[in-house]
Order: sequence, then C-alpha cells, then structure tokens
Amino acid sequence: MRLFRLAALVLALGGTAMTASSDEGMWLLNDPPRDLLKSRHGFELSASWLDRAMKANVRLNSGGSGGFVSPDGLIVTNHHVAADSIQKLSTADRDLYRGGFLAGARDQELKCPDLEVNVLQNITDVTAQVNGAVKAGMTPAQAAAARRAAMARVEKESLDTTGLRSDVVTLYNGGQYHLYRYKKFTDVRLVFAPEKAIAGFGGDVDNFEYPRMNLDVAFFRAYENGRPAKTPDHFRWSPDGPKEGDLVFVTGHPGTTNRLETLAKLRHRRDHTLPYTLARLRATEAALHQYGERGPEEHRQAATVHHSAANARKAFSGQYQGLLDSSVMTQKQKAERDLHATLVFAAHQHGMIPGPQDAKILSAPNDYLDALERVAAVQATFAGFEREYLLLETGHGVSSELFTVARHLVRMADELPKPSPDRLREYRDSNLESLRLQVFSPAPLYPALERVKLQTALTFLAEQLGGDHPTVRLALGGKNPAGRADELVRGTRLFDAAERKKFADGGRAALDASTDPLVLLAKAIDPEARRLRARFEAEVEEPERQAYAELARLRFLALGKSVAPDATFTLRLAFGVVKGYEVDGEKLPYHTSFGGAFDRHARLGGVEPFDLPKRWLDGRAKLDPATPFNFVSTADTIGGNSGSPVLNRAGELVGVNFDRNRHGLVRNFVYTEVQARHVAVHSRAVLEALRKLYPAEALVKELTGG
Amino acid sequence: MRLFRLAALVLALGGTAMTASSDEGMWLLNDPPRDLLKSRHGFELSASWLDRAMKANVRLNSGGSGGFVSPDGLIVTNHHVAADSIQKLSTADRDLYRGGFLAGARDQELKCPDLEVNVLQNITDVTAQVNGAVKAGMTPAQAAAARRAAMARVEKESLDTTGLRSDVVTLYNGGQYHLYRYKKFTDVRLVFAPEKAIAGFGGDVDNFEYPRMNLDVAFFRAYENGRPAKTPDHFRWSPDGPKEGDLVFVTGHPGTTNRLETLAKLRHRRDHTLPYTLARLRATEAALHQYGERGPEEHRQAATVHHSAANARKAFSGQYQGLLDSSVMTQKQKAERDLHATLVFAAHQHGMIPGPQDAKILSAPNDYLDALERVAAVQATFAGFEREYLLLETGHGVSSELFTVARHLVRMADELPKPSPDRLREYRDSNLESLRLQVFSPAPLYPALERVKLQTALTFLAEQLGGDHPTVRLALGGKNPAGRADELVRGTRLFDAAERKKFADGGRAALDASTDPLVLLAKAIDPEARRLRARFEAEVEEPERQAYAELARLRFLALGKSVAPDATFTLRLAFGVVKGYEVDGEKLPYHTSFGGAFDRHARLGGVEPFDLPKRWLDGRAKLDPATPFNFVSTADTIGGNSGSPVLNRAGELVGVNFDRNRHGLVRNFVYTEVQARHVAVHSRAVLEALRKLYPAEALVKELTGG
Repeated sequence: MRLFRLAALVLALGGTAMTASSDEGMWLLNDPPRDLLKSRHGFELSASWLDRAMKANVRLNSGGSGGFVSPDGLIVTNHHVAADSIQKLSTADRDLYRGGFLAGARDQELKCPDLEVNVLQNITDVTAQVNGAVKAGMTPAQAAAARRAAMARVEKESLDTTGLRSDVVTLYNGGQYHLYRYKKFTDVRLVFAPEKAIAGFGGDVDNFEYPRMNLDVAFFRAYENGRPAKTPDHFRWSPDGPKEGDLVFVTGHPGTTNRLETLAKLRHRRDHTLPYTLARLRATEAALHQYGERGPEEHRQAATVHHSAANARKAFSGQYQGLLDSSVMTQKQKAERDLHATLVFAAHQHGMIPGPQDAKILSAPNDYLDALERVAAVQATFAGFEREYLLLETGHGVSSELFTVARHLVRMADELPKPSPDRLREYRDSNLESLRLQVFSPAPLYPALERVKLQTALTFLAEQLGGDHPTVRLALGGKNPAGRADELVRGTRLFDAAERKKFADGGRAALDASTDPLVLLAKAIDPEARRLRARFEAEVEEPERQAYAELARLRFLALGKSVAPDATFTLRLAFGVVKGYEVDGEKLPYHTSFGGAFDRHARLGGVEPFDLPKRWLDGRAKLDPATPFNFVSTADTIGGNSGSPVLNRAGELVGVNFDRNRHGLVRNFVYTEVQARHVAVHSRAVLEALRKLYPAEALVKELTGG
Repeated sequence: MRLFRLAALVLALGGTAMTASSDEGMWLLNDPPRDLLKSRHGFELSASWLDRAMKANVRLNSGGSGGFVSPDGLIVTNHHVAADSIQKLSTADRDLYRGGFLAGARDQELKCPDLEVNVLQNITDVTAQVNGAVKAGMTPAQAAAARRAAMARVEKESLDTTGLRSDVVTLYNGGQYHLYRYKKFTDVRLVFAPEKAIAGFGGDVDNFEYPRMNLDVAFFRAYENGRPAKTPDHFRWSPDGPKEGDLVFVTGHPGTTNRLETLAKLRHRRDHTLPYTLARLRATEAALHQYGERGPEEHRQAATVHHSAANARKAFSGQYQGLLDSSVMTQKQKAERDLHATLVFAAHQHGMIPGPQDAKILSAPNDYLDALERVAAVQATFAGFEREYLLLETGHGVSSELFTVARHLVRMADELPKPSPDRLREYRDSNLESLRLQVFSPAPLYPALERVKLQTALTFLAEQLGGDHPTVRLALGGKNPAGRADELVRGTRLFDAAERKKFADGGRAALDASTDPLVLLAKAIDPEARRLRARFEAEVEEPERQAYAELARLRFLALGKSVAPDATFTLRLAFGVVKGYEVDGEKLPYHTSFGGAFDRHARLGGVEPFDLPKRWLDGRAKLDPATPFNFVSTADTIGGNSGSPVLNRAGELVGVNFDRNRHGLVRNFVYTEVQARHVAVHSRAVLEALRKLYPAEALVKELTGG
C-alpha cells in the first residue's frame, strides 16, 4: 500500500515516471506489466501468450531480433539485420546484398558463416549470488573482480547443468542480476532476401523517417543436426495485419537505453561520449563512403559496413540533438527532483509515526543525494581517461576486423590457461563457443578494405591523443597511419581462418613466436589496454553499479517496479497502439502503401537511393497499390528491436519492426508518444510481395500454414 | 661574400634549405630567382618575360588563378575555380555546373554575380613603414593596432593616388611587408565551361591523384564599361604543349604554405589545428553529402560546396599524414638545428676576428633560439583558446552564407563610422568595394541548404565546447541546433539582397532596430567574438610576427634570400621540369591521353564519378585518342595555384595547372620532387576537345589568334 501512495505522490508532483499514463516500457518477461495492460488496454496477458512470445522469439548475434514463423525453424527478421550474413555469403560475382536471394528448395538454403541465433528458455534472479560475492571493505577493484567471478561461476554452473547458453544480465544498471538461459543455433541458413533497393528504399535519406516504404525483411532457417529445427513455438503470420487503433506488442531485444541514468551521466554523454562518438562515426563513414566510390566491387565490399556506420551516425546524431534540447534535460532534472521530493515526503510522514521497519525510509532522501553525487564523481574521473579507454581497450583506435581477431588470439593465449572466473569476462567458459564462432569465421575479408579501416582508425587515434602520445607512437611504429596500415595488412597472415586456428592451437608458445605484425601490434598495446580496462572496471563500472543499485533500491521504494529497467539487448515486451501523428500541421497516416513507393521513385527520378528494383518496376501492374506497406505504433522500441515481431492480441505476427521515426530518436533518454513512433513492415505487404513478385510459392505456403 | 660562405656551410652540414639543388620555390616577382634559373636550367629571365607573366596573370576572388589568353580579355582558369560562379549562374532548370555552357556569341556571355578578378600591376616594399609604426615599449596589443593602422594608411594612400586595389601583404610570416597594387575587374562573364563529369572526371576518388584525365578548364571574359577589356598583355596559347624534359613555369597565386614555420608551430598544427579542422570538414562534408542525397535538386544546390568540402578534406588529410610522418618532422628538426649550427659557426668565426659591423652575428645563435622559444610559447597560449577563436570569430560554429552576411552587416554598422585605420582590417576603405560585392551579391541562396549548414555548424560548436558553455547557450538560444537553425532560417529576411542593402544603408539605427533573428544572433555573439579576435591579435599574431621577423632576419643573414617566403595568395613564379615518376615500381608517364579516360570509364562501369558526358561518348570517334590530356612537372605549387598558367621558355601557355598528386600534399611543409608533382591540363587537349566536341569555333579562333 505504501508503494502505491508514494507513486501517487509522484504523479501529484507532476513527475515524469508516469508509466500508468503512457505506453512506455520495455518490460521484463519475468515481470510483465499485467496490471497496466489490463487497466490501459483491457488486455489479459495469459501465461501461454507470454510463453510463446518468449520461445518463438530469437536474438541474432549480428545485433537484432526475429521470430520463428513456422514449425520448421523458419525465422523472419529485418533485411538490415540479415545484411551482415547476406554480405558474407556474397562474392564479387554473386552480390546477394544488392540482388537479393531466394532458395529454390530447402537444400539450396545458404549456411551463414558465423551467424548465431539465441532463443530464451527461462530467467532466474541471481542478484543475491552476484551481490553476495562483494564483501564490505572491498576496494572497488576487488569488488569488481569478485562480482565478475561470481557471474562467471553462475554461468558456468548453469551451462554445465543445462547445456544452455547462460548469461548473467545486469539490470537497472546494477540494481538486479538475472540469469538468462538460451537455446543456441549456429547452423542458420538464408532462405530469402529481397533486393537492397526495396529493403532499404530511400537509403540514408529515409532512414529514421516516416512515411516509409521498405520491404525490410529477410528469412532464415535454423537447423539442428543438419535438418530444419523443430519449432512448435512460433508465431502465426497474420494475413490481414493491424488496423488503426489496434493494440500491438513488440517482442524483441532492445539494445541500450539511458532513461534511468542520472543527469550527471547524461551531461557526461552530451559533453564527452557523444561528441567523441560522432567524430569517430563521421571519420569511419566518410572513409567507407570514399572506399565505395573507387569502383563497383569496392562499393559492394563496403556496402553493409557503410550502411551500419551511416545508421549509427544518424541514431547518435538524434541522441545528441535530444541531449542538447533543454526541454529534455529539464525533464530529466525534474524527475530527479521529484523522486527526491517523494522520498523527503515519505521520510517526513514516517518520521512522525515511525514503524519498526522504516529506518531505511528515514535515510532515503540523503541516500538518494549521496548516490547521485557518487555517479557524478565517477563521470569526472571517467572524463580523464575515457578517450584512451575507448581507443585502446574498446579498440576504436585500431578498429578493423583483423585487429579484433589478432587481439582475441593474443588474449586467448593469455586468458585460457586461467580458471574461468579469473578471466576477462568475454573469455569465460560459457562464452567460448560463441567467441570461437567469430574468431574462426571463414567470412571473406578484403585487404584494401581492412587497410582503409586501419588507416582511418589509426588516424583517429592520433587526432584524439596527439602525435607524441606514447600509445600513438607505439601503434604507429615510426610510420604515419597510411604507411602503418599498409605494412600491417601486407604482412599479416590472419586473413586465412586456418592460420588463426593454427595460432590458437599453439597457445602461449605460438604467441611468443609470432612475427605477424598485427599480432605484434595487439601484443604491444595490450598492457596499456588492460591497464585502462582495469581502471574502467575499478573507477567507473563498479562504483556506478553500486551507486545505481542504491538508486534502484530507492526508486523501488518510492515507485515499485512501475519503471522497467533500461534496455540490455535481452528479451523485452513493449506494447502500443497503431496510430498516425501530425508534423507541422500535416497528418501522417498510420500506414503507407505500395503505391507510395512508386510515386517516390518517380518524383525523385529513380536515382539511388530511390531506385526501385527492376522486378518491382516490371511487376508493378501485378501489385495492389493500396496494399499497406509500413505502419507505425506508439510501442516503446530502440535499436536492437530491429526485426522484432509485432504481435496482436491473439499473439499473431502482424508486422516486423524495423525502425523508429526521427521523433523517436530521443527515446534513449525519455519516452514520448506525441510524434515518436516505431515503424514496421505490414504482414500483408510481405505476403503480397512474395506472392506477386517473387517465385516464392513454397515460402508463402509455409508462412500461411498451407 | 659572407652570405655565400654561410649558405655553403649549410649545404656541408646536410641542411635541407638546398634550393640550389632542387626546383623548390614560389618566388616573388620583385625578387625572382634569376641566378638559379640560369645555373640550373640555362634560362635567362628577361624583364619583358617577367612583365607579361605579371600582367597577363589574374587572381580570382573565388580562390584561384588564371591568365589572359587573348587581347580581348579572355581568361582561362580551372573549371573547379570557376565552379562557384557557374553554380551561382545555375538554377533548378538550368544546371550549368553539371551540363556545361558555351556562349554562342559575345552577347550571350553570362555576367557572374560576384566574381572579382585582380591583375597585379606592381609591388613596393613597405616594410619600413609598417614596422616603423611599432615603437619600443608597446604592448603586443598596441603594436598590433599600430601595425594594422599603418597598413591601412599605406593602402588608403595608394588607393587614393592610383585608383588601384592596394593590399599590404605580410611576407616571411612578418619578415617583410610589400604593397601589391591590382587592376580590378568586377564585370566578368562566363564564356565556356565543360560538363562537370569531364572537368572533374574521377571525382573525389581521383582528386589529388595521378594518372589523371580531366578537362579542368573554363573561360571567362573580363569586361570594362560594358565591353570586353583590352588586354594586350596576354599569353599565347601553345598548340603543341610541353614535352618530357621541358622547363616550365607556373605563375599563379599559391594560397598557403607552412615551410618556414618552426617545429613548435608544426607540432601545434599536428596536435591541435589539424585534428580540429579535419573533424569540422568531415561534419560539413557529411552534411552536404546527405543533403545532396535527398533528391536531384538538392544534389544540384549542394554540388559545388560539397566538392569544396571534399577537396579541403582530402588536402588537409594529406597534410596531417605528412605531419605524422616522422621523417618529415625529423627533416624540419634538422633544418632548425642546421641553421642554428650555421649561426654558431659564423659567430665563432667572427668572434675570432670581429669586424665593426658584426655585433649582430655574435648574438645570432642566441637570438635564434630565443625567437624559436617565443614561437613555441605562443602555441601553448593559443592552444588555450584556439577552438573558441575559430568557432566564434572565424565563424565555424555559425558557418553559413547568411550568417556571414549578417555579421558583416552588424560589423559594418559598428566599424564604418570609425576612421579607416582604426577598423577591423577587412573594413578598411581600400577593401570596401570588394567586400560589398560579396555582401550584396544577388547569387541565389537556398533556405533548406542554409538550414543544414547552420544546424551542422551549431552542432559542431556544441560538440567542441560542450552543452553548458555560455557561448553555446547564447548561440542556441534555448533550442537544440536543429530547432535553432530552423528558427533562424524561417525568420530571416536576409535571403533578399535588397533587404541587406536597406539594412546597410540604415547604419547603426537599422542595427539597433532589427529583429531579424540572424542579425540578433550576430549581435549577440559579437562581443565575445571580438574579444577572441583581440586576444588572437595580441597574444598570437603580433608575437608571432615579431618572432618570425627575427627568424627571417637570421635566415637572411645565414642564407640570403635563397629561400622564398611562404605562400600568401599573391603572385609567385615557380619552375620545374616536365617528367614522370615511379610508384611501387610502376613508371607513370609524364602525360595521360584522351584514350585513358575512355578506358577508365569502361573499366569502372561508367558510374559516377567515372561517367563520361554523353557528348564525349558520342564524339569519341572524332577525337585522336593519343592526344595528351594531363601532364605533370616538378614545379612548386599549392592550393590557390589552381588555374595557374603553365608557361614555356617562350612565355607561351602550354598548360593550365589544376592539382597536385598525393605525394605533393606534404608540400605545405617540405618540398620534394622524387614523386611529388603538380598536374596540368595540356594546352593541346583543350584545343582538340574544343575543336572536335564543342561547337566552339569562335573560341578556338580567338585562342589561336586566328
């Protein structure tokens, strides 16, 4: 009852944590918003609905979501999520990313070189075990190590017991720890991909915009033991899709939000992390664009990484504009002050008639301010070494596919001899299989492209730290970035996955004997990179976890779990209403149509990125131009939700989420539904296109359960 | 004799100022390298040759060079130099930049809205007058003001006496001051421009590269009193062009070099100025590229500014790679040490048998070290406010055509009531006519493009200074950059040149009464911008001038004027030899040919930027494929030399310079001729193309003196 009273007070104060009055929330599946759905939308969330939502959902290691849509392992996701695999399956002579792909039969489905798909099976709260490892009096460094070891132990034990991929997930920025167990598929094959020109119609111009006309879908199939996986838990494909006003659900894996971060942390993002990030993305995107201009084959090689860089740049630019918007910062400030006021009011009330269990309420206001100050202090510390940390340990200053491989090889030799709980987290036993899938991937790499990536990263490193910085000198080895990148790429043998395996099998001895210039570089900068990582864990990550744990406790005290945790690339449930919105007095409808794509193509001269594929131009007469193409709803999504199934009340798939509009870019920090929308491909559009334009009878039959 | 001895010593020490053994040098026309030309190339530089080189050369205020090539005011320059005017003459329905232009007759030549052309008439040394204004005991701020006033007085007096545009130019970074007097043409008309696709064939990919196949030429005509100007001083167009091994001259207006800057200054550029500049250019280029992707008309509007940004990015990237090249920095360090050693040696010699006039020689070594230290100290100071200075006073943080206009209007109201010598330098009487040509230009501006420029600049401002910086808050006025840019562009009336005139005519009262949001913004940030400028002049510019004057004196003492001053966008004479070079074992010939362009088009699929114009594809059979197209020589050029006439011994025009190769990008700091080359359009290629592909009989006749 107390919780209810405090929450009501927040509302009375005009607080912003008004989940009850909006569709905000990326909810945990083990703590779903049953009451909210019932009160706002009259929807009874059943156990079976929720169970299917969990077990028919998939997460792709290329960074997106998807869903099973047949009993035979068929997966739908976005084309832009599938792009990484489609690109890796392409060659100079077979450009599947540009030209599309349809398997004529199951034995023609193409095995992806390094795609892993995870299906969540269950969730367990392990907060007590993880926090229990941290003892009073430990230094932050000791606490970080103890916590990391506890997480690795929980994961290892779970893996050994269940055989499932087991990840401990940090929720509420340190407020809770949950164990997520996944069924894992590593034999995943490409079934269908449309042409890039229709999957991403409008390109960067239309990205994060609406109205939108994209067939941003692709189909994979999960295999087990060489045969299509049996997936009794799957979503039925709705032939009709949603209508205006419908309640819909988005189930998927939102990547990162920052809504529960303190004002000090957001200021740090605004004044340090984001300007750095934007500078880095611009350098990367420009280099990839310029590489792609050299000729058609270079354009093909860089196509997907260029798209990723452009997409990230647009998303982060939107975030940055959001944090420079004084109304957003004012809103965050007000939320902090309101929560404090709620705690003051509660302490005051309880101070008058204190009960036996209310000691914590009395100190709550000061505990809250203390925790805020601790987060602020961490930011001041972090500002002093953040760029070096990101450049060296995160690897922005040496960023390339091959350097990532080289570093893993170096660190595997160092880490694997240690007991799992003592290793750097990514080398824990429970993660090794997934890691090896990446490190030994046979996916093609292109020397000239790797060279450009390395030159760009090394140049950025020098720009950020200065030409005389010891790390810069070490990384450049007496050359300029162009010369150094050339030397590294000419000299390395890591292009060959077999060489990497040989190296990994050789362990420490192979590492010591290696003269591969990329391995030598990774070895040379590793002491400094590890020092920065240790510093980050002890001075940033662990103090933040502890302070946020305190903030989470106080927020629960005041508001209960009426606020969902920030996104963590784990399965969440969001809901919203299908509806259009207004911009500058113009009403935008809730859906677009096929006809709109042809109009836009014609109006803009049909030049890239507004060039519809030949198949679409030729087949135009076969299509019903009124077919709904894309639609929007108010449901709460973020990057990582790409490919998320959009479901109706019956749990049928009515759409495939693929984007937000530009008004939704600020949702990293605050939820708004006045204009902010996610955008999804309409389930009817997919069927209509597959039926009329592609020789995809078998796929249509499988989707419609025929 | 002493000078000779000291110079010889530098050579003996392995010094790098070996002008006598290379073709280095952008020489002053009033101090030409007669002896060098005679000794190295057996060429007697005659007074008449030099006089024509001066009076047939033109400087364009769009930032390039050109030359008169007929007695009737016909000017040849680069297409990319003419691009600014070509773009301003274009509309949505008439894209001359993309499609090209040929005036059918003289009365169809198109008057450029704001192009000014300057023709140098004579040069006078005014060092004594400028330095004489600075008295002992003056603070740097007082010295800067006195020097600025002296320069303005010299210029005003010259203008009043001669009617010629009169500019005092700072040479040797403060070592000398010369008065340059120009004949000025402001009625300049477009005669011919080829299609962008052949003028800039290969686009950004081939920019600063070689082999190259560009028809990067355009023709203007200077008019006086509504009739073609009489230009008896002009270059004869060589029908044959140059051959391998020929001595050639490049006469034009190199913009900026940094060869005489100290090591400390170059380190400052490497670690402060260049990283900032590259970040800014990347943001600008990306924004313009994205704007151009919105559709064909947006692409047209942004085409030339986008090209400029890309060109600058590539040039500065090359500079940055150069300064990160340890061999370049070592070479600069060695040059400083060698010069010091020369002075020590000289002092030692003179110490043994001191003569009556040698006091200065004895103190020279210490004077040299002192001056180096003063330059180093300035850099440390500048690092503390450089970004604010560049963002606010140079205007990078509010960069847009319209803001530039608004600031000029605000400052004209403030400055023009003052006596000319007391004004900010660009508002001095002798510069007003040129300034007004810009401010009141009727060239078209595009609201959506201005909006993007402002949003990009304001975002960059926030990124650089942080969201809570007072200037950022002032500039954003409570909005985010996107919202603020929108508000400024929607609210301003400065798109209309007539409004600007009205405003300027209203003076101070109009300024005080204005509610134009761009004017209000310019007013609001002006106090801080002026404070930063005053600080720059007192703490950077003046101390550097004084220190560099000292360094110049000591260099003259040791080496005489065997080293030319750094480039200053004033007329210089360079010379070199036409010859190919080797890259990675491949021999690149001294010239390319028409056939090469067709080959490259075919090999890269004919897609932009390798898309030859229809006229060229259709007319291919008419052309001799062996026609030399572009050629290279060792002559010393830099940006600003674009459009420079390339002359042979007879003073005939054999080519039009338009670029350097990538090996030449380091020439900002050091001259090298192993691989570094400038690239020029061959005079024969121009005639062949005009004769065979364009209906340009009249132009050909005029060029060939028919």
